[in-house]
Amino acid sequence: MKFSPLFWPVKLKGDTIYILDETLLPHKLAYIKAATCREAAKAIKEMKTRAFGQVSLVFYTFLLVLKQNKGSKNIFKVLQKTAGTINATRPTLPFKLLTDLVLGWAREGGLENKISGFLELLKAKRIQRAEEVSKFIRDKEAILTHCNVSGELPLIAEFCQRQGKRIEFYVTETRPYLQGSRLTAWELKRAGFPVTLMTDGMVASIMAQGKITKVIVGADQLAQNGDIANKIGTYQIALVAKHFKVPFYVLCPPASKAKTGKDIPIEIRPDKELLEYQGIRLAPYGVKGHYPAFDITPNRLITRHFNLNLQR
Amino acid sequence: MKFSPLFWPVKLKGDTIYILDETLLPHKLAYIKAATCREAAKAIKEMKTRAFGQVSLVFYTFLLVLKQNKGSKNIFKVLQKTAGTINATRPTLPFKLLTDLVLGWAREGGLENKISGFLELLKAKRIQRAEEVSKFIRDKEAILTHCNVSGELPLIAEFCQRQGKRIEFYVTETRPYLQGSRLTAWELKRAGFPVTLMTDGMVASIMAQGKITKVIVGADQLAQNGDIANKIGTYQIALVAKHFKVPFYVLCPPASKAKTGKDIPIEIRPDKELLEYQGIRLAPYGVKGHYPAFDITPNRLITRHFNLNLQR
Repeated sequence: MKFSPLFWPVKLKGDTIYILDETLLPHKLAYIKAATCREAAKAIKEMKTRAFGQVSLVFYTFLLVLKQNKGSKNIFKVLQKTAGTINATRPTLPFKLLTDLVLGWAREGGLENKISGFLELLKAKRIQRAEEVSKFIRDKEAILTHCNVSGELPLIAEFCQRQGKRIEFYVTETRPYLQGSRLTAWELKRAGFPVTLMTDGMVASIMAQGKITKVIVGADQLAQNGDIANKIGTYQIALVAKHFKVPFYVLCPPASKAKTGKDIPIEIRPDKELLEYQGIRLAPYGVKGHYPAFDITPNRLITRHFNLNLQR
Repeated sequence: MKFSPLFWPVKLKGDTIYILDETLLPHKLAYIKAATCREAAKAIKEMKTRAFGQVSLVFYTFLLVLKQNKGSKNIFKVLQKTAGTINATRPTLPFKLLTDLVLGWAREGGLENKISGFLELLKAKRIQRAEEVSKFIRDKEAILTHCNVSGELPLIAEFCQRQGKRIEFYVTETRPYLQGSRLTAWELKRAGFPVTLMTDGMVASIMAQGKITKVIVGADQLAQNGDIANKIGTYQIALVAKHFKVPFYVLCPPASKAKTGKDIPIEIRPDKELLEYQGIRLAPYGVKGHYPAFDITPNRLITRHFNLNLQR
């Protein structure tokens, strides 16, 4: 398999975490370094990495803290403090679920091996899921996607290719952060698959032409009733897909403690991120912006959830 | 009334047409000059002005050509050539309807007065329509709009204000040209009305919160069955509004000859306009973009058409 740099965007080498700086893509492929828990949390807050990158960064941060505090008697307290710092970064991602998992392992002992083993399992299960999804896709399908599914789409396309199926992608640019243009179009083009970029407003127009056969998106959180939180814009794509009877697939993390989408808090980001782009002011001064980073897509609009099954 | 510069963005002074350069807004309020039919057509093609600005520019171009060819024996041929140049600019706007109207008047005689009278009528009817729309709006409504309705929204808001009703606006930024941020948010803010900017992907999210009470958009063309062509993105807003039972109002020009929306050709713009912004490359090189400038909203999604009634 060829992996997109976005499939595994965080690495730990020695006492330093290397985080793929997604804000510099597609123009520059570069990693920022984090040598402390605080620096890692800052990278999450500033969305230098997102989605799966943030999840893996949580585990790597604990590995780093373990390394830096080897032999310390207060290691559990240090881990608790680490968990608190991570939990405080962004509300919509279920960081507490992850940090609670790690604190649970810490109580049992053998934490370092448990984290490393879990990361290996995650990698294997994500590859397995890409293969599973590929089996639902037929030859010559055109798949619409939104935001970025952390390197899983090029894998799905590669599995399709091995099965003799040619597929193409339509990618919404995903304002305001442009993850669709900057990340998804970039990784698909890089992997050699046909990709067409469109604005977030073109979904109904292109589906009305019958060009799209499936939607595949990721999810930042899965509630117990099947509702998902994902990048703002996902909900209306699901509504439009339902109208045009286009199957809507979601690649989900394991369910969080939220019973329904209503229990998932939605992060409101600074409106500057919407009103400016790379220092260019897009909107008139004095106008306020509205920027919820996520929206909730109800279960009834989702044709199929592809959950990460983390049982070994 | 206070008029937005976008309400009447084209003027003829002497032998020069002054066209509000909408591409410089909101940072600079400046007019470009056109001294020939060819320069006027270029301003249309390059979208220096759009929507009502383009319509009025067609008439001003004929007035200019009349002035420049006073006493010419071949005036009808010159007018026909002018019509041809204008008709060739952009496919989705029904320019031929307008130029045929002018050529018809030319055959009857008294063309200059007829054009001037028609422009005065247009102005009066647009003001009248704004007042009519205002009567459908109650106190404390929140109106979502897309793209730019050529200065009619500030007028509607002013009529509401006179009737003691406070209303606010939510404006989609309207990628890729950002008419929502650059023009609509600007003119509403300038006129002193509350306005919040959002991305094109946030419509379902904000309607799910019950924040929007009406949608008001314009139309670049109205087919005889009530379908409309308007800025790309309009169709999915109408679908989402229908889902949330939010009334969807359209300010329309008189119907064209198109029987249904299917008879309206959709202009495909250069994908560069989607892949770059003010010289900043947004997408990776080598990726292609899809940029239909308009989409068709079917009649059944439209709660009410506000047609321009041009009978005196």
